[in-house]
Amino acid sequence: MPELRKDPLIGRWVIIATERAKRPIDFISPHHEQMPAEECPFCEGRESHTPKEILAVRHNNGSTENQPGWSVRVIPSIKPVLRIEGQLNRRGKGMYDVMNGIGAHEVIVETPVHIANMADLPVEQIRSALGATMTRISDLEKDPRFRYALWFKNYGTIAGAGQIPHSRSQLIATPVVPLRVKEELVGTRRYFEDKERCLTCDLLSQEQEAKARVVLDSPGFVALCPFAARFPFELWIIPKRHESDFSKTSPKELDDLAGMFKQVLSRLKSVLDDPPYNCLLHTAPFRKQHSKVGYWKTIEEDYHWHIELIPRLTRVAGFEWGSGFYINPTPPEESAKYLREAVISAEPVVIPTH
Amino acid sequence: MPELRKDPLIGRWVIIATERAKRPIDFISPHHEQMPAEECPFCEGRESHTPKEILAVRHNNGSTENQPGWSVRVIPSIKPVLRIEGQLNRRGKGMYDVMNGIGAHEVIVETPVHIANMADLPVEQIRSALGATMTRISDLEKDPRFRYALWFKNYGTIAGAGQIPHSRSQLIATPVVPLRVKEELVGTRRYFEDKERCLTCDLLSQEQEAKARVVLDSPGFVALCPFAARFPFELWIIPKRHESDFSKTSPKELDDLAGMFKQVLSRLKSVLDDPPYNCLLHTAPFRKQHSKVGYWKTIEEDYHWHIELIPRLTRVAGFEWGSGFYINPTPPEESAKYLREAVISAEPVVIPTH
Repeated sequence: MPELRKDPLIGRWVIIATERAKRPIDFISPHHEQMPAEECPFCEGRESHTPKEILAVRHNNGSTENQPGWSVRVIPSIKPVLRIEGQLNRRGKGMYDVMNGIGAHEVIVETPVHIANMADLPVEQIRSALGATMTRISDLEKDPRFRYALWFKNYGTIAGAGQIPHSRSQLIATPVVPLRVKEELVGTRRYFEDKERCLTCDLLSQEQEAKARVVLDSPGFVALCPFAARFPFELWIIPKRHESDFSKTSPKELDDLAGMFKQVLSRLKSVLDDPPYNCLLHTAPFRKQHSKVGYWKTIEEDYHWHIELIPRLTRVAGFEWGSGFYINPTPPEESAKYLREAVISAEPVVIPTH
Repeated sequence: MPELRKDPLIGRWVIIATERAKRPIDFISPHHEQMPAEECPFCEGRESHTPKEILAVRHNNGSTENQPGWSVRVIPSIKPVLRIEGQLNRRGKGMYDVMNGIGAHEVIVETPVHIANMADLPVEQIRSALGATMTRISDLEKDPRFRYALWFKNYGTIAGAGQIPHSRSQLIATPVVPLRVKEELVGTRRYFEDKERCLTCDLLSQEQEAKARVVLDSPGFVALCPFAARFPFELWIIPKRHESDFSKTSPKELDDLAGMFKQVLSRLKSVLDDPPYNCLLHTAPFRKQHSKVGYWKTIEEDYHWHIELIPRLTRVAGFEWGSGFYINPTPPEESAKYLREAVISAEPVVIPTH
């Protein structure tokens, strides 16, 4: 059983993944080669190579579960970092806090075709994948053991994508609210108490006026390089309508968001020559009404969901680990300028055959 | 002028290093080769290839500044992330907080000989380097613009060491207390308010009793793998005597610490086949008496300095960036066991010639 352990100094939770335990030799041995396309378990027609699907968007109405005919498919991770069965059993170990590693770990396969980068998918395909993510988050919220679901995406080996170059994202539901999200909740709450306004709404209006860090401005969303960007070409996508909860995005907004994703990822690919990247969603925690903690109460009025996109171009070294300070060698105004001026080809997506 | 910018959501400061600004092409171009030993600017005899020294420990009493005859040498960084001259000029930019990128950035060259890993230095050499670090921290504290000095070490390209394999560490003095240190100050303060005891002292006594995570136990220090270790083989060195400030370490404790460093680094090298690593010091901030912030007042009684050692074996991916949650595939009890049982050779250090 994996274990969740709390750092007593700063309150950060760590997953001790006992079931995928690694010995020294595992770190020394050379990395595996990329898996050949004909063995990819995520491609259409190879459904029997994965666990049974949790959800699938089917374009072929006559098709059946765990068979071809889908356009997006959600499956349990074959190497889950948290286990779905069992009780949390929160307990102490002397001065330490610990609980069982209970949670959900799902993989959203974003295309039936063997394409690695979401940037190369058609907009409708991106929209379907985002829609399936919304459905899964709403479903996971019903499980009373969970407090949060983090959606994220790793593209490229450096960004942690593993050896299978097939576009997918992941969803991990956790029994505690992650520290990074808590810090944002505290920050936006403090601002709201002072001003009775949402920090992110204020930030958006200032950025739209200044324009220097804005990359794209659509009817529903702004893509910008944040003022205190930690990384070169770090980019956030923020909805214009104040909303704490991603799963309340309207169908029309989802169309817009899918187009924004396609645009932004294509520009990153063009400017930085297909860089590895991480992408993640920060949305409100589950059970907004029920917690007694102060910053929970007003979450709907002060928290504002957003997506963070981080190209992996620089190495994080001792100074960053030690301080929580980041050194960014590219001012966000310059990153934004490059991305605004990027030339992206309108050529049709290449469908590989295998 | 580099700029310090504060993230409005969680209060994290970022250094926007305008003077070493990188364009997209800089990230795409291939990395440089390792610099050949005969060009290493840190080797004895090549003092004219570096900026003038700030401090040197000289074994040859007849030798003069910026000439051979030293065993440890401290110089300003040739690519400083913060500038030493100027005023902070704290100011607002609309809703954002910004100040000039003022600070000190020094390099501690830990040996006159071209050796890459501190693990391969004689204990006396490590002691000299730690002593020089103490002297520099105490000196930087006199500058009223600075609030903190972070000592750290990057070994290996993956850990951010650059292209020169010559053992050295760095010291960056900053005008703000880094977020990671602040979080520790808040955590230890909260514990002290509740128990009137130091959290780290309690942790040490529990760990010494349990033994499972202890790697080494010397008269003055304990080396252990922390209960909620973020990374495989993460290791902390903690002084047994309660002390918030590293620069108050006694000469006898410094002997002990140097021996502990040699032991621990040699064991990591043996068990993990010479892994890249980061190492960093968390000590009390400067000007403990003068700040009005609550957690400052009792810093001397509740904060406890320590060293964190992080072998760079796993990749940090989207989930970790998004959540502040870490997934550690090696339980710290197992890491500690491997390190305790490591066989380290007692052979003399090889001095390379060039």
